[in-house]
Amino acid sequence: MDAAVLATAASAAILAGESVRGRTSPNPPVGCALVDASGELIATGATEPAGGAHAEAVALREAGERARGATAVVTLEPCNHTGRTGPCSHALVEAGVGEVVYLTADPNPLAAGGADFLREHGVAVQHMPIRVGALQPWLHAVRRGRPCVTWKFAATLDGFTAAADGTSQWITGAESRELVHEDRATRDAIIVGTGTALADDPSLTARHPDGSLYAHQPRRVVVGSRAVPTGTNLDRLGYEQYATPEEALAALWESGARDVLLEGGAGLAQSFLSAGLVDMVQAYLAPALLGAGRGVLGGPVAATLAEAHRFTRTLVRPVGDDVLIELERSD
Amino acid sequence: MDAAVLATAASAAILAGESVRGRTSPNPPVGCALVDASGELIATGATEPAGGAHAEAVALREAGERARGATAVVTLEPCNHTGRTGPCSHALVEAGVGEVVYLTADPNPLAAGGADFLREHGVAVQHMPIRVGALQPWLHAVRRGRPCVTWKFAATLDGFTAAADGTSQWITGAESRELVHEDRATRDAIIVGTGTALADDPSLTARHPDGSLYAHQPRRVVVGSRAVPTGTNLDRLGYEQYATPEEALAALWESGARDVLLEGGAGLAQSFLSAGLVDMVQAYLAPALLGAGRGVLGGPVAATLAEAHRFTRTLVRPVGDDVLIELERSD
Ligand SMILES: NC(=O)c1ccc[n+]([C@@H]2O[C@H](COP(=O)([O-])OP(=O)(O)OC[C@H]3O[C@@H](n4cnc5c(N)ncnc54)[C@H](OP(=O)(O)O)[C@@H]3O)[C@@H](O)[C@H]2O)c1
Ligand SMILES: NC(=O)c1ccc[n+]([C@@H]2O[C@H](COP(=O)([O-])OP(=O)(O)OC[C@H]3O[C@@H](n4cnc5c(N)ncnc54)[C@H](OP(=O)(O)O)[C@@H]3O)[C@@H](O)[C@H]2O)c1
Repeated sequence: MDAAVLATAASAAILAGESVRGRTSPNPPVGCALVDASGELIATGATEPAGGAHAEAVALREAGERARGATAVVTLEPCNHTGRTGPCSHALVEAGVGEVVYLTADPNPLAAGGADFLREHGVAVQHMPIRVGALQPWLHAVRRGRPCVTWKFAATLDGFTAAADGTSQWITGAESRELVHEDRATRDAIIVGTGTALADDPSLTARHPDGSLYAHQPRRVVVGSRAVPTGTNLDRLGYEQYATPEEALAALWESGARDVLLEGGAGLAQSFLSAGLVDMVQAYLAPALLGAGRGVLGGPVAATLAEAHRFTRTLVRPVGDDVLIELERSD
Repeated sequence: MDAAVLATAASAAILAGESVRGRTSPNPPVGCALVDASGELIATGATEPAGGAHAEAVALREAGERARGATAVVTLEPCNHTGRTGPCSHALVEAGVGEVVYLTADPNPLAAGGADFLREHGVAVQHMPIRVGALQPWLHAVRRGRPCVTWKFAATLDGFTAAADGTSQWITGAESRELVHEDRATRDAIIVGTGTALADDPSLTARHPDGSLYAHQPRRVVVGSRAVPTGTNLDRLGYEQYATPEEALAALWESGARDVLLEGGAGLAQSFLSAGLVDMVQAYLAPALLGAGRGVLGGPVAATLAEAHRFTRTLVRPVGDDVLIELERSD
């Protein structure tokens, strides 16, 4: 297949998967694009909410008879097992798809084997390794058997989340705050400590700049022993509370969450990091300096420099006046 | 003049100016490109060390007779006064240049007026405002009547320059450290506090990765009252010492420095920042977290968030595993 057509189809598949982030767990947010022999994009599909169709099935349904002889580009290796839906590998064979290109190998031993099944049934199969952002949290989760944890913080360039007198609104700009809300709408849950719950009375909702709610809302999770008072926003909106980070992650995993956002505060973030429970970091840094105040972490996570928690940079971009840096664990 | 030709000539002029950073003070590192009527680049020139020719004169000398009718693109408005060299505006008229395009207006009342003189003598003059990086320190310096101060620091993403036990080598990677040395070679001076001079025994030289010295070396400056012991690197290489930031900047300005790098430590940086003496910030941030340790500043520079020192972001880029963020004061 022509490289340019393939690249376009891969982009379409990636975008389709991106569009359903936060609404597919425990399934991964996969995207699929079908292209005919002339290079025309016939259909795209993305994972439906749990219990619904997988990306391939959605695209095949949209394509109908035109799927015969087409090439399917899928962000994840088609599954080969019968869960709540039939195996995608079978559906692709039945629809007469001629070639399947997948961007990420399935790490799930239960679901893997799709590529082999397709090959055995005369479908050309190609693995074109491309890092698919939407799948990374799910991949981390499956690898570790707990939800992927992204720790987000907003700080000054010298690492403070509040000034010496406690003032903290606003460190970062409107664009950063808007992006945080957009991001919340792609997560299964938001976690905060009781310290933040009591100090800030947060809503932990995903809101548009006009205050209206995104269609998808993450679960609201509080960690710690102190009670969240009645009458607070969390009390009004509903929340789950767990005694420890480990309990929270186990319960979230069991109930299907795969991709959760840890929004602090400093004490809980220190606990997650020290326990090796942070898979990704999102740092929103404002072009401001304070020299003193509240740090992003409540205390040391390493005694000496050689033990510093080191990550791999996956993204750096300007956001309004601020800078967003994203890291991912490399082990 | 054709827009594409103009853009190419402007790039050539900017590059020429960039190439002499650190070696022109008290004059600005200006670049000049001469283009003939057919759009061909005839010559480029850059400011020679103080006492030498200005960029325009260098380019005119290289172009010879071909300068007649040519267009000169200069990063700074041609000077109009007779210092150690004759006015560039006169030289351009005498060489028969037909048009002059300058990218930055001259803020120096003594030198300004070049554009008017050129127009009065029949030369077409155009101001094409483009931010010329190499000129920014000089512009800050002239505006404030003291050298422009760029404060550089290297820290973890959460703002620490050393772990709790004092270990600090290395936080950032080899690429960042290489870039710092490259940058040192473009400065008039490097300033550190006595704390750093005593704790680190620094050389404050600009070195290539193999340890060899760059051709241009910045002046080595120490601020504080404590004596630098004999036998240290600074003692061996030679250095200047001043009692306070203000005394250092006054002496540096008087002796021609316009562009200096403040490399710490935390105590001196706090003093400079609190006194409003930091014009630019260079933050090299490693993808690492410590949670505690030595902060980038020795203590508060603002009591409340509204008083945080805010800057404008001018650059953000990945450097090896690290991120470089550059800020500039906006007032
Ligand atoms: N700039 C930002 O990005 C940002 C984001 C969020 C919050 N904040 C600020 O951070 C402040 C709150 O920080 P904080 O450190 O006081 O509170 P916190 O981190 O939100 O909560 C701390 C509490 O979490 C629980 N916890 C932490 N580690 C635990 C563990 N290993 N096992 C069990 N429970 C654990 C404990 O609850 P119990 O004591 O109840 O058992 C602890 O007191 C707020 O003022 C908020 O404004 C800033
Ligand atoms: N990661 C990085 O980017 C980086 C860079 C450089 C240094 N460092 C580290 O920082 C540490 C040193 O920090 P530090 O804070 O102890 O030392 P420092 O900032 O280098 O020097 C502090 C000294 O500077 C003088 N000083 C500061 N403000 C002054 C003012 N307003 N007027 C007059 N003198 C003033 C005082 O000298 P006197 O007491 O002698 O009068 C003061 O003790 C070192 O361990 C070094 O490794 C880190």
